[in-house]
Amino acid sequence: MTTESEKLNFSCDYLEGCHPNILQRLMQTNLIKMNGYGEDPCSKSAQDRIRKACGAPGAEVRFLAGGTQINAVMIDALLASYQGVIAAESGHVAVHEAGAIEAGGHKVLTLPGKDGKLSADAIRAFVEDFAADPNHDHEVWPGMVYLSQPTEFGTLYSLEELTAISKVCHDNRLVLYVDGARLAYALASPENDVTLPDLARLCDAFYIGGTKCGALCGEAAVVPHPELIPHFFTIIKQHGALTAKGRLLGIQFDELFRDDLYLHIGGSAVLYAQELKKALQEKGYPLYLDSPTNQIFFVIDSRQRERLSAQVEFSIFEKLDADHYAARLATSWASSKEDVKRLIALL
Amino acid sequence: MTTESEKLNFSCDYLEGCHPNILQRLMQTNLIKMNGYGEDPCSKSAQDRIRKACGAPGAEVRFLAGGTQINAVMIDALLASYQGVIAAESGHVAVHEAGAIEAGGHKVLTLPGKDGKLSADAIRAFVEDFAADPNHDHEVWPGMVYLSQPTEFGTLYSLEELTAISKVCHDNRLVLYVDGARLAYALASPENDVTLPDLARLCDAFYIGGTKCGALCGEAAVVPHPELIPHFFTIIKQHGALTAKGRLLGIQFDELFRDDLYLHIGGSAVLYAQELKKALQEKGYPLYLDSPTNQIFFVIDSRQRERLSAQVEFSIFEKLDADHYAARLATSWASSKEDVKRLIALL
Amino acid sequence: MTTESEKLNFSCDYLEGCHPNILQRLMQTNLIKMNGYGEDPCSKSAQDRIRKACGAPGAEVRFLAGGTQINAVMIDALLASYQGVIAAESGHVAVHEAGAIEAGGHKVLTLPGKDGKLSADAIRAFVEDFAADPNHDHEVWPGMVYLSQPTEFGTLYSLEELTAISKVCHDNRLVLYVDGARLAYALASPENDVTLPDLARLCDAFYIGGTKCGALCGEAAVVPHPELIPHFFTIIKQHGALTAKGRLLGIQFDELFRDDLYLHIGGSAVLYAQELKKALQEKGYPLYLDSPTNQIFFVIDSRQRERLSAQVEFSIFEKLDADHYAARLATSWASSKEDVKRLIALL
Amino acid sequence: MTTESEKLNFSCDYLEGCHPNILQRLMQTNLIKMNGYGEDPCSKSAQDRIRKACGAPGAEVRFLAGGTQINAVMIDALLASYQGVIAAESGHVAVHEAGAIEAGGHKVLTLPGKDGKLSADAIRAFVEDFAADPNHDHEVWPGMVYLSQPTEFGTLYSLEELTAISKVCHDNRLVLYVDGARLAYALASPENDVTLPDLARLCDAFYIGGTKCGALCGEAAVVPHPELIPHFFTIIKQHGALTAKGRLLGIQFDELFRDDLYLHIGGSAVLYAQELKKALQEKGYPLYLDSPTNQIFFVIDSRQRERLSAQVEFSIFEKLDADHYAARLATSWASSKEDVKRLIALL
Repeated sequence: MTTESEKLNFSCDYLEGCHPNILQRLMQTNLIKMNGYGEDPCSKSAQDRIRKACGAPGAEVRFLAGGTQINAVMIDALLASYQGVIAAESGHVAVHEAGAIEAGGHKVLTLPGKDGKLSADAIRAFVEDFAADPNHDHEVWPGMVYLSQPTEFGTLYSLEELTAISKVCHDNRLVLYVDGARLAYALASPENDVTLPDLARLCDAFYIGGTKCGALCGEAAVVPHPELIPHFFTIIKQHGALTAKGRLLGIQFDELFRDDLYLHIGGSAVLYAQELKKALQEKGYPLYLDSPTNQIFFVIDSRQRERLSAQVEFSIFEKLDADHYAARLATSWASSKEDVKRLIALL
Repeated sequence: MTTESEKLNFSCDYLEGCHPNILQRLMQTNLIKMNGYGEDPCSKSAQDRIRKACGAPGAEVRFLAGGTQINAVMIDALLASYQGVIAAESGHVAVHEAGAIEAGGHKVLTLPGKDGKLSADAIRAFVEDFAADPNHDHEVWPGMVYLSQPTEFGTLYSLEELTAISKVCHDNRLVLYVDGARLAYALASPENDVTLPDLARLCDAFYIGGTKCGALCGEAAVVPHPELIPHFFTIIKQHGALTAKGRLLGIQFDELFRDDLYLHIGGSAVLYAQELKKALQEKGYPLYLDSPTNQIFFVIDSRQRERLSAQVEFSIFEKLDADHYAARLATSWASSKEDVKRLIALL
Repeated sequence: MTTESEKLNFSCDYLEGCHPNILQRLMQTNLIKMNGYGEDPCSKSAQDRIRKACGAPGAEVRFLAGGTQINAVMIDALLASYQGVIAAESGHVAVHEAGAIEAGGHKVLTLPGKDGKLSADAIRAFVEDFAADPNHDHEVWPGMVYLSQPTEFGTLYSLEELTAISKVCHDNRLVLYVDGARLAYALASPENDVTLPDLARLCDAFYIGGTKCGALCGEAAVVPHPELIPHFFTIIKQHGALTAKGRLLGIQFDELFRDDLYLHIGGSAVLYAQELKKALQEKGYPLYLDSPTNQIFFVIDSRQRERLSAQVEFSIFEKLDADHYAARLATSWASSKEDVKRLIALL
Repeated sequence: MTTESEKLNFSCDYLEGCHPNILQRLMQTNLIKMNGYGEDPCSKSAQDRIRKACGAPGAEVRFLAGGTQINAVMIDALLASYQGVIAAESGHVAVHEAGAIEAGGHKVLTLPGKDGKLSADAIRAFVEDFAADPNHDHEVWPGMVYLSQPTEFGTLYSLEELTAISKVCHDNRLVLYVDGARLAYALASPENDVTLPDLARLCDAFYIGGTKCGALCGEAAVVPHPELIPHFFTIIKQHGALTAKGRLLGIQFDELFRDDLYLHIGGSAVLYAQELKKALQEKGYPLYLDSPTNQIFFVIDSRQRERLSAQVEFSIFEKLDADHYAARLATSWASSKEDVKRLIALL
């Protein structure tokens, strides 16, 4: 919540701390001695809850601290040295990870996306072209497909789309990996039909985002078939991604998955975002694209940008032409009804 | 504190959560909106407090999540591609980081240490031998010296020793970097004469450990002369080491450096450890080496090990011969007087 | 030369061995003892001749074995860890090096090219967009521009174009590096106006290709201002790119630069290629693009492809549509007038 | 051969060019068009000859340019990201490759050797200690054993020793890899009882050295069970280690393995080296260690060093004390009887 004297802030979905249950649990457990590196009872309970929520009793679940980190670790763990990862041009790994994937030795093979999404057809065409290219032994082998659900544009893969992509991947020996940095906002969207068990069934690995979805930090890697990543613990350690006090991550996910909180925590954010979308349209702002989750992309001109910026913090995503910009408003699990109302009044 | 029914645990110094001030501050600030990636007021305040405590007003201070991570980032940031890092054979980067330094492309050039410490003479001899070797262009260039204060064996560099090492480094164009994972336990030791301003004056970079010294997570990199690492922010991001909710780290270090808490937080742990050391000696356990901080290394035989293990968790550090082991007891800022008494009674 | 019974082969420009002068010199010097690693008199003479041909008396010249290798070494030597290299989408480093650049930790930042060429304007727009992007600290920093002269499509940068690109690079602190795998065919083209001294003046580093231009193996890195790459020798060794018997490379470049042979060695190949281009046009094959050097790209349909393939080896570069292909004919310094005549008769 | 006016040179075994048969073949084939990247008939013939000499008809054989390169490629191809390679402290990969192995992300786990050799017992003890260490998940996993035959000190593994090491490796899931940079000098030593078929039977991979054994450049990787390295071609390319004119390497190895030349080419060098050893001993120089191949290590004092250096080039390997040095004399396949006689006269 923002007090009246403060500037509204819808610039991103990681502006606040964490769900109060997490803080309470941190207080309750603070002086209890627990072993490190994820060998604590909170982490074990959180792993069990996640396995159950995913309908994947045999899955390996590991907690890492942040999004770029988990992507770099997973991609490195899942690819052979000569393989690269297929991603949409707008994919987080392709743009906003400062080369973390390449620092691990792997090329990001980008394909044009539509509203941030890859299609099964585009992936199939790419791998078929690769296979048909007589020089492909001189090129990076596609070894994996990276998707984000929701995408960086807040859009969603439908179950049908994800099923088709999964089939293309497995027909072509590509690992399918899904970045769920904002997964709670997908799961809470009325338009979503992809469940956690669907992800566990269709993907080779994915992660359940904590940082943007109610935690202070933390992302949960899920590997339905653990034999896919031997010595995962050591790989995490080697990447500097092993948290000594694993309880910090375990407690957060144990709370996020207590009573299925994670499935609902994004609900208000999605509702508010859709209200913002409606208000923007009513006030004549063209949508840049139509997102059913917690990020709304719209078009503003320089004058509008200047006026709005004086009262609200939001993101400029791209300069479209001399006078127009793609802008983004993001809500979070902690956004308040009052702030949304005030923002709508200002639009 | 351990309740009577629980087994005592002195296996390491990261068994508990964090200093209560940190939890309180997390509660107070939880729903305040703050920008990400360290651009929040808590991080800025913490940076200022650390700069002040170090007497280094121009220093760059950055917060990372953990020890292996910060070592990998700093070493990669400070070395050219063809350079390696000199460390003691027992150095954390040489042994217990699962090859994180090598994964970044750098060789760890190990020298035998004495009680975990390198000497200025040994470093000088190494670089002089390297310089004299006609084939040295075919070898990894020493570019940096890595020390830990206190060392992995709990021992301390004196100001005289550190000054001598600093001189050897700077005479030989070696960067001097100090790993302060347990720095609070050095600063609180009566035997210590190296202050934070000394570190800032003598080192090119060092880190102030949080995870083992009262925080849930977090280590503070200090670079007295920031021009040494251009684009440090991007380098951190590239390593997957940038915390989105930087407030989590900022708050912890802001509290640890409020009213110089960090300078004293290790005091009880050091006191208790020295009591344990005295008790061990009185009861006839030989010391493995003599440490003035919060880790005590001693020798036990198989029978003692079996008996003690039934009632206390502690670490076996090394098998010395068929019947003897080097064992370690570690205290932390959260160890209780009662637990220490109970442990002494059991020895 | 191809004997009548053999199939003609214009599939690439590295089908033959080396210029006869090289073999003769190898014979003459074979049992003379010479020091390794480039410390032999032949390498030193070759370095001097290259420095003289480039009008760059202070340049560092080093001989490496092959093209992908030298690109990987140079890019790694010239970039900081957080930097990437700008290249055309068709650039060799972006497509046909199996991820060697990424294996060294660097992202290839691709821009669309025109006939394989980047423009100064496109580079400037890219770096200005990067600078204007508020999130650019989360992205790979552009640190270098990679060009090839001639390009992978056989096209040439004019002196005016290269001068403009050099200015953009130096205005924006980008290193300019030119891949000269086929440089002899540029230097011998009547349309070329970029000399070796121009390259030495306008670029920060470039390489003079041997393998495709009369040598058995070998490429010569030229760094006009050697202080740009400290410890270049060790960097080369670290990449496994140091040739023990450096004489093998030294002898080849010493011969290629004796009496300016390199400036002329590509002449016949360019002449023959231009004859082939004229013949293709006369016989109604559309050009895919117009190249003034030794590679000719043209369009054929399936029937033509089948007929021609029976008698000539050539490359299919790309499938254009269901029935059409971009094909390539390449000549080399060793192509014979007779083979060219026979090929024209077959078109 | 050295003419009388020239200084004798026994500083290493790569001072001369190549066996005359190779030059002759290069002449004969120079203008014959051959496909690149090892797809030429000479390479195919050489592969067949090597497979036959190794009694390994199913082996994959690939030609690379040099020793550090092939070690870096093979180790990277054979290890998972979290694994390191066990080597003797004096191993080439541990000392004289400028960190090429670490640049590929792998730690070299050194063990003390005896005269450059590792023992099966030492390897077993290391992996057993590792397995017994409760913290080993935080350490680099041993994935491979690296040996050199002959070693960097010219010593040889016996068939019994190699068999024992092979057994330890395969009992412990370690890949066994042998660096044969000077393999011809092992094969030609009267003391050797390890044949090429033995290597193919006992090792997972090894390489047959060309550069130091009669070639201008080139090393032949042999992988008896090719399924061990999928996409080896692309891995080689990614390391910048694929030779475009593969004929250059193919021709050399085809000649070296014509009529088993490779098995005998080191014979005179070994004979001469043993004569030098005998002469050194007779003249009172202590041996530094006893080598049965083409490198002789002995001890000299400063005065002897000065006197000898004026007339012969040789290597100083190590400074032993204020006045003594370990020195090396090396012979090659091209060393002449006359030069050896002259050297003996000078000792």
